Amino acid sequence: MNGFMTNTKKVLFILLLLMLSIVMIFADGEEEKKSGADFVWLLLAAFLVFFMQAGFAMVETGFTRAKNATNILMKNLMDFSAGSLVYFIIGWAIMYGDSILGLFGFSDFFLTSADPGSNAGMFQYASWLFQVVFAATAATIVSGAMAERTKFSGYLIYSIFISAIIYPVSGHWIWGGGWLSSLGFVDYAGSTVVHSVGGWAALVGAIVLGPRIGKYTADGKPKAIAGHNIPLAALGVFILWLGWFGFNPGSSLAFSENIGYVAVTTSLAAAAGAVFSMITIWIINRKPDASMTLNGALAGLVGITAPCAFVSPISAIIIGAIAGIIVALSVLFIDKVLKIDDPVGAVSVHGICGAWGTLSIGLFAQEKFAVASGFDPIAGLFFGGGLKQLGIQALGVASVAGWVLAASTILFLGIKFTIGLRVKKEEELKGLDIGEHGMEAYSGFQIID
Amino acid sequence: MNGFMTNTKKVLFILLLLMLSIVMIFADGEEEKKSGADFVWLLLAAFLVFFMQAGFAMVETGFTRAKNATNILMKNLMDFSAGSLVYFIIGWAIMYGDSILGLFGFSDFFLTSADPGSNAGMFQYASWLFQVVFAATAATIVSGAMAERTKFSGYLIYSIFISAIIYPVSGHWIWGGGWLSSLGFVDYAGSTVVHSVGGWAALVGAIVLGPRIGKYTADGKPKAIAGHNIPLAALGVFILWLGWFGFNPGSSLAFSENIGYVAVTTSLAAAAGAVFSMITIWIINRKPDASMTLNGALAGLVGITAPCAFVSPISAIIIGAIAGIIVALSVLFIDKVLKIDDPVGAVSVHGICGAWGTLSIGLFAQEKFAVASGFDPIAGLFFGGGLKQLGIQALGVASVAGWVLAASTILFLGIKFTIGLRVKKEEELKGLDIGEHGMEAYSGFQIID
Amino acid sequence: MNGFMTNTKKVLFILLLLMLSIVMIFADGEEEKKSGADFVWLLLAAFLVFFMQAGFAMVETGFTRAKNATNILMKNLMDFSAGSLVYFIIGWAIMYGDSILGLFGFSDFFLTSADPGSNAGMFQYASWLFQVVFAATAATIVSGAMAERTKFSGYLIYSIFISAIIYPVSGHWIWGGGWLSSLGFVDYAGSTVVHSVGGWAALVGAIVLGPRIGKYTADGKPKAIAGHNIPLAALGVFILWLGWFGFNPGSSLAFSENIGYVAVTTSLAAAAGAVFSMITIWIINRKPDASMTLNGALAGLVGITAPCAFVSPISAIIIGAIAGIIVALSVLFIDKVLKIDDPVGAVSVHGICGAWGTLSIGLFAQEKFAVASGFDPIAGLFFGGGLKQLGIQALGVASVAGWVLAASTILFLGIKFTIGLRVKKEEELKGLDIGEHGMEAYSGFQIID
Repeated sequence: MNGFMTNTKKVLFILLLLMLSIVMIFADGEEEKKSGADFVWLLLAAFLVFFMQAGFAMVETGFTRAKNATNILMKNLMDFSAGSLVYFIIGWAIMYGDSILGLFGFSDFFLTSADPGSNAGMFQYASWLFQVVFAATAATIVSGAMAERTKFSGYLIYSIFISAIIYPVSGHWIWGGGWLSSLGFVDYAGSTVVHSVGGWAALVGAIVLGPRIGKYTADGKPKAIAGHNIPLAALGVFILWLGWFGFNPGSSLAFSENIGYVAVTTSLAAAAGAVFSMITIWIINRKPDASMTLNGALAGLVGITAPCAFVSPISAIIIGAIAGIIVALSVLFIDKVLKIDDPVGAVSVHGICGAWGTLSIGLFAQEKFAVASGFDPIAGLFFGGGLKQLGIQALGVASVAGWVLAASTILFLGIKFTIGLRVKKEEELKGLDIGEHGMEAYSGFQIID
Repeated sequence: MNGFMTNTKKVLFILLLLMLSIVMIFADGEEEKKSGADFVWLLLAAFLVFFMQAGFAMVETGFTRAKNATNILMKNLMDFSAGSLVYFIIGWAIMYGDSILGLFGFSDFFLTSADPGSNAGMFQYASWLFQVVFAATAATIVSGAMAERTKFSGYLIYSIFISAIIYPVSGHWIWGGGWLSSLGFVDYAGSTVVHSVGGWAALVGAIVLGPRIGKYTADGKPKAIAGHNIPLAALGVFILWLGWFGFNPGSSLAFSENIGYVAVTTSLAAAAGAVFSMITIWIINRKPDASMTLNGALAGLVGITAPCAFVSPISAIIIGAIAGIIVALSVLFIDKVLKIDDPVGAVSVHGICGAWGTLSIGLFAQEKFAVASGFDPIAGLFFGGGLKQLGIQALGVASVAGWVLAASTILFLGIKFTIGLRVKKEEELKGLDIGEHGMEAYSGFQIID
Repeated sequence: MNGFMTNTKKVLFILLLLMLSIVMIFADGEEEKKSGADFVWLLLAAFLVFFMQAGFAMVETGFTRAKNATNILMKNLMDFSAGSLVYFIIGWAIMYGDSILGLFGFSDFFLTSADPGSNAGMFQYASWLFQVVFAATAATIVSGAMAERTKFSGYLIYSIFISAIIYPVSGHWIWGGGWLSSLGFVDYAGSTVVHSVGGWAALVGAIVLGPRIGKYTADGKPKAIAGHNIPLAALGVFILWLGWFGFNPGSSLAFSENIGYVAVTTSLAAAAGAVFSMITIWIINRKPDASMTLNGALAGLVGITAPCAFVSPISAIIIGAIAGIIVALSVLFIDKVLKIDDPVGAVSVHGICGAWGTLSIGLFAQEKFAVASGFDPIAGLFFGGGLKQLGIQALGVASVAGWVLAASTILFLGIKFTIGLRVKKEEELKGLDIGEHGMEAYSGFQIID
């Protein structure tokens, strides 16, 4: 009987091993092999973020004058078209390639490492698509601030450089395994990585260009230059809001159970941003200005982009509301006090609110949300985390701002003193559509400048 | 040998139990734990329904005059922005909270019950997002009927109340486990829950406001007031049609195999609605009017919203075709006979066709489709079900109409006699964009009123 | 002990069988039963392709004159509305029904075979939706080439026939198991099946109609007739680009790991098309024309549609770039040399670049990509495949062109000599919006013809 028992135990043991291996096959599959849900979710998110290009194009076109509409659309189209080619050739390699001292990546140019024969290789293509639409977002933010006066050829040079070098380098620091991420800096979906990069480059572009003719009177008083198509701008904001459902929840980079939660914080912050920027401008100007309210929704979205996976829905409303208030004040400050001409408010929306959103993690993060999103238990100042995370976040904001301000100053000055950055006065007065592209945006319509 | 057999049987038994438990783990996972497909599908649907906000904004803007475009866009933006904040705070609790006598819910204010640490909690966030975009749809339907003459501040009050109270209460009756659902009333995706709620509130709003200046001559003859931007309106209809692929198929509330089928009935009904409203107006007016055809597509979509998961594709075409005919006749009747000024036809599209669609379940439902959609085997009059379901559907239509008409009458009269519902005559003539928001929608364009 | 061993072996054997059956249940499920990922992916793709209808509507409207905008929108709306009804009744049966000698299908009219009670039946609904949006794409391509002079009633007849017969027949040859697919012809997402079918029908339509009044001077010199709304056209191109993420990657027809890779080749080709058409027209006209650049993006997309699942990303860039160059030259050639008036360039974009894309498989296909996409190891001329595939591709291009040119010549001439294809001169001058539909697209705006 002893032998029998032993044999029965052997049978049991072998069968348990078999079962275990079956279970492990399934478990392994879930962990390592990317599933249908992973692919479909990441691509859905990428498609939505791609569509933000249309949103930016409509917002920037709508908020500027009819005579420059074609030019703005061409710049937006080229931001994505030229931008995605250079991101394919260079940008991805700098951002996600093997790290050189945590400063930048340097491998996988032309995405050559992706193997179509493997699950991982196939997923890499999806990942690249998600990343290229992010890169193009950073580029396209800038065109609004430089609208109505920038030479098309000069803009093209800039657009190529931001997608190839400027965005990927600081992106590497945070998302590519570089030095900032090693310090514990977090930015879930890119308030800093994407938006403030675009915002600071926009600031430099607007300063180097100088204001549009007629924007400031001889004694320095700002004159409002009204946008020509508010319905298009509003459509653009709705498209951007939609796109942000890919931008933020999709930053899980694969299927994750936190995607619904992140969509909720994202949308609530946008709603709060719109409501509170409307209230702010209503108090200041006595009227609920539509441009500012639309920018308020965007401000809320930019603000929640970094903290969307770390904060409660109620905190998201607070973060969005503050972003809405900030954007109204910032637009007025930049326009009236700094006298920098940013036609669409890109610096305020993306730069200032991007910084605010990144810092807000240091205030509002809660451990349970961070953990649910697959991060270490991060807590902000208001939730028992002390000042540590806030300090790291501030360091990240400042470092990226420093890099982008420096790099884009060199770039824009370089363009200015070589092929030129600004169109001639006569062309600017007549409109860039005729001057740069030889066509009108609204042929047949009677339009007074 | 007996002992051996017994032991072998024991081994077999234990192993079978183990296997069974493995199988049950997987089976359980499928039934109870929400999968990647559940999350991704529900969020995709929610994003599409969110985008309907842009569709409504474009349709309502395009079908009205240029001088009021900014105002309409602001109302649409606030319907979602303010609406989603109050739905977060109050609306969801009233609609889906623990039921008080089947009349309304009352728990889970601020969505506090959702636990980010659990699968169910995470899915609750996704569910909330899907619900909030529905609530906003009901709200935004109304703005079209009240276009071009409503005070912005008064509209804001209304918009908040419909999202916080009016929509959630009748929604609770049907989708929140309330009394109507207990009686067997069904409305798959909201012909009644969403559209007719919006439609009846729109009717009351239009009546309380009265017609736009110049809409009716001194002797009561209606004058057509043409919309200013048919391309935007057409774009809006395409966006809404797209959004309805989330609205109807997404009402499975998780992944379900019926989603393709529901998308087919939805799209065929829309197509039939467009074709048959075009034919109807072609016969009546001798020309295929574009506004009516566009509204016909929407009528088909509203009509199929309740029955989309219960009827055959051929029945869907019939339901949509009838909706297309109804909407053309209803728009003319309301305009010429009732002399109620509904600038975009919202009452006909959402109210009347919402009622038609809800009733059509009682005519066209088939057991095999209902069962395939996870419902009891419901059959309509034409498919052997007798009059029972039709009666229940009629009761639901009438009850919800009664509630919304009463509640919104109180609300709109309350606003009218306190802060005011209508702008001053001079402002209406000049346009609400200047009067309410201090800006033009199309700066620079030469526009005659 | 012998008996024991035997018994233990029996136990082992039975248990292994049980395990095997469990594994096979799961494996079977993956292979035969369509999963959540299959449904969600195919529907997502179908929704995106549906949205292309809005894209075409905006592009065609924007590139033509304001006085014909409503008419174009109505044609686009009817392409989908009437088209999807006839594709439901007839088209699907011709395309995917049981094959008659490989020439056309003939079964499953009204989609009656789909059983809502089974997984396969439910998936069939999703498949039908994906196919109907493809059929509508072919139809809607034509309206652009025939814009601004076609009688609405005549156009409706054409639109019904292409969706019911012309498109399904050649579609059957390639995707319905017909003779071309038997020969080894491949077209992953429809450069030939969809785009060149639309393009060749557009060519015939434009020739039969003749040029718009004023398009050519008495001595045959072409005059540019500028489009009236470039922002709408640009929005349309962004929407189409987005929609192509459903069109190409969705042509997996169920979830497949190649979807990210196909999205990458698709987007890179579009980017290259835009950049290289811009460069081409910049060299020729000394200005980067926006219309041509926008068409360049579409040309890249049409070009990559057939080869998207067979070529490397670098080849995709080359294919797209060549398409961008081709489209610029083709538009000029058709306009100036052939003197055919194609207002939006539909023949060049869809016909010529559709042919180019189909042929490019014979040049750039690589075995590893074809295999990864579930095809036989196809290789093009540049990757060791010799001339065989190129020859088969050329045969397919020519056969489909022959069929469509012949069928649409008969159709358009038939319409011309019965109810008439072109509006009267006075109506054309005044605009088709007033003449055909009794309304203006932009009421209130001051517009010079």
